[in-house]
Amino acid sequence: MTERTPPVHASLPQFPISGGELVVGGERLSLLAARVGQTPFYAYDRGHLRQRVAELRAALPRSVKLHYAMKANPMPAVVGLMAGLVDGIDVASAGELKVALDAGADPREVSFAGPGKREIELQQAVASRVLINVESMREVTLLDGISQRLGLPARVAVRVNPDFELKGSGMKMGGGPKQFGVDVEAMPELLAAVGRAGLSFEGFHLFAGSQNLRAESICEAQQKSYALAVRLAQDAPAPVRFLNLGGGFGIPYFPGEQRLDLQPIGDNLAALAAQASAELPEAAFVIELGRYLVGEAGIYVARVIDRKVSRGQVFLVTDGGLHHHLSASGNFGQVVRKNYPVTIGNKADAALREPASVVGPLCTPLDLLADRMDLPAAVEGDLVVVFQSGAYGASASPHGFLGHPPCVEVLV
Amino acid sequence: MTERTPPVHASLPQFPISGGELVVGGERLSLLAARVGQTPFYAYDRGHLRQRVAELRAALPRSVKLHYAMKANPMPAVVGLMAGLVDGIDVASAGELKVALDAGADPREVSFAGPGKREIELQQAVASRVLINVESMREVTLLDGISQRLGLPARVAVRVNPDFELKGSGMKMGGGPKQFGVDVEAMPELLAAVGRAGLSFEGFHLFAGSQNLRAESICEAQQKSYALAVRLAQDAPAPVRFLNLGGGFGIPYFPGEQRLDLQPIGDNLAALAAQASAELPEAAFVIELGRYLVGEAGIYVARVIDRKVSRGQVFLVTDGGLHHHLSASGNFGQVVRKNYPVTIGNKADAALREPASVVGPLCTPLDLLADRMDLPAAVEGDLVVVFQSGAYGASASPHGFLGHPPCVEVLV
Repeated sequence: MTERTPPVHASLPQFPISGGELVVGGERLSLLAARVGQTPFYAYDRGHLRQRVAELRAALPRSVKLHYAMKANPMPAVVGLMAGLVDGIDVASAGELKVALDAGADPREVSFAGPGKREIELQQAVASRVLINVESMREVTLLDGISQRLGLPARVAVRVNPDFELKGSGMKMGGGPKQFGVDVEAMPELLAAVGRAGLSFEGFHLFAGSQNLRAESICEAQQKSYALAVRLAQDAPAPVRFLNLGGGFGIPYFPGEQRLDLQPIGDNLAALAAQASAELPEAAFVIELGRYLVGEAGIYVARVIDRKVSRGQVFLVTDGGLHHHLSASGNFGQVVRKNYPVTIGNKADAALREPASVVGPLCTPLDLLADRMDLPAAVEGDLVVVFQSGAYGASASPHGFLGHPPCVEVLV
Repeated sequence: MTERTPPVHASLPQFPISGGELVVGGERLSLLAARVGQTPFYAYDRGHLRQRVAELRAALPRSVKLHYAMKANPMPAVVGLMAGLVDGIDVASAGELKVALDAGADPREVSFAGPGKREIELQQAVASRVLINVESMREVTLLDGISQRLGLPARVAVRVNPDFELKGSGMKMGGGPKQFGVDVEAMPELLAAVGRAGLSFEGFHLFAGSQNLRAESICEAQQKSYALAVRLAQDAPAPVRFLNLGGGFGIPYFPGEQRLDLQPIGDNLAALAAQASAELPEAAFVIELGRYLVGEAGIYVARVIDRKVSRGQVFLVTDGGLHHHLSASGNFGQVVRKNYPVTIGNKADAALREPASVVGPLCTPLDLLADRMDLPAAVEGDLVVVFQSGAYGASASPHGFLGHPPCVEVLV
């Protein structure tokens, strides 16, 4: 009889340990917490953000444009840094558009997608001269009117709801009936309307899914997206100059998950780019990444307020919880709750460890950041760190819930 | 062979229909939307809040105090109204305490519970002269120091983690190892410490679970809580003057759920109160309700921005979604997503109906307010209404997600 080893979290080399403490942005965690002046806080590591972009540049063909989908982390300082590192910013609302433009993003390299764009948002996008990913016939009609009023033809790409989906994705965003994009079957009619309206057609946007850790699935979706774009280009009112193949690159959150292998994806894109030089000679490929760029660069830090032992189980009660970090509590799209990687950041390599649950201050059993994990033994005042928290953390959480103070975000 | 009728939502008589429109706070929905001046918004109906309190007063013994757990809906206007209707307000943070005191709540009838109270919060609570539900030995020690510094003995009740749980609850908050309260087994030691510290002991808080639709389970939990309190009173440093038996009264959200029957609960409390007049002669019973008081009085209203048909399925794309109403999207504690009751509020009794999904403007498939429901046929401009939205709606949602405008709340 052999014992099965339980699956473990992927290693997290981005945050070294020095003097027993996690080092974030070159600073020991306890000193960083002192600098921030309060817990809870999120910290995002500039060095890791730069390194991640460099890794992608090394693995992907030079001709592929790298976009940052700022919905993953809209902190203005992060968007400002990313705007200088990547080739473009993808926004999901007029609110995000403002942050991107304030951050100095070049409007020519900003694109705007979303299934429910309000008319005022479309007008703001046209006036900003950014590329609009059209998602329905209604948007074509509205953009026609806006373009005439402003004397400025809207720059548009058409978001396609393909007839396939990205296998093994955390979230499926294409295939079957969807609110996203225009069904492939309806494309000829819509493209004709774009042409009649005199909008400036620039290309296609295909986004099959997100948070995928299987390179072969991503390659397959890219191949199918490319083939579909070549087919659709025949009905387009102008040459395709912009082909957004989506993203979908995942990061490891839970025990047993492994980092995505970029090399096959790079090779695949190189092969597709070679094909495109004949078939879509004016087209630039765009890869749009949010979580993959920023997710691993961020941590969430909360302080232990109370250490309780209830019926033999240790609870570390912290000043942070699901109101700041809904995803880590398991309440954002997860069907079965699993633990994010968590440690005690000021005792990261302590020999003394114990099974403990990390909970927040809220009066609800949902407020759980770690469920019976093996952690360095902690006492009041220690700093709990939740890793893999750079994406869909602060901005995707219900800060007002139960009236606790907001958290702070720092880029270090 | 008989056909099984699919389960339906409970009827919602609190919002009548007039002239084809839902009537909210005495106003037709389209006029209310015009008054608010924007969508999305939440509206809470004063009349229904008053009626719900009156129903409870009629069903429960006169001697039972009714508290409002404002975590369910902390809108200051709602708290202000409720402060005048109920006997006390329960707060979960210093932030909520401020709102309650601003709303005119009598500090003698305010209690403060929560597993991770910060020292500053405990100090604010002592200085405010509110009752503190102590949840750990650490809090006793801190309150001892604070009481001495301020020259004001802290008013305390002890929150107990019982050795039973509330059967059939949406959320279990007692029994087994828990972060909430003090294990029954540890009570004698803690009560002795409360006595030594010279804190003003006032009673017990027992909260076994929430969102329960079975009267018999609630009665059973109340009986067990009462019996436990009688037992614990023997070790208490002073007579029990305050016995918070928790809440747990649920409201029907999903198809097949039926309204809770109050009568057995009232009868049960009357029997327990009769017992208490001999066993705990100085004790007032408190029932603490949040969701049950406000949940059914509220609706969330969003406007249809686009009507899309994708592969035969109708999508009503609205300007509201999970960023304002996380619970209705199924991402707040639900394991399997189910539809809240939803209608088209300006066409509530339209004969023409169709199966449709209601989605929000976010670029995520999680942003789903109704999944293939039978709804009045809707077009752009129509008003989608999500019922049962008065509790854990606006304040429990990630407003900043994707940079869309905040929603508005009105009390009508």
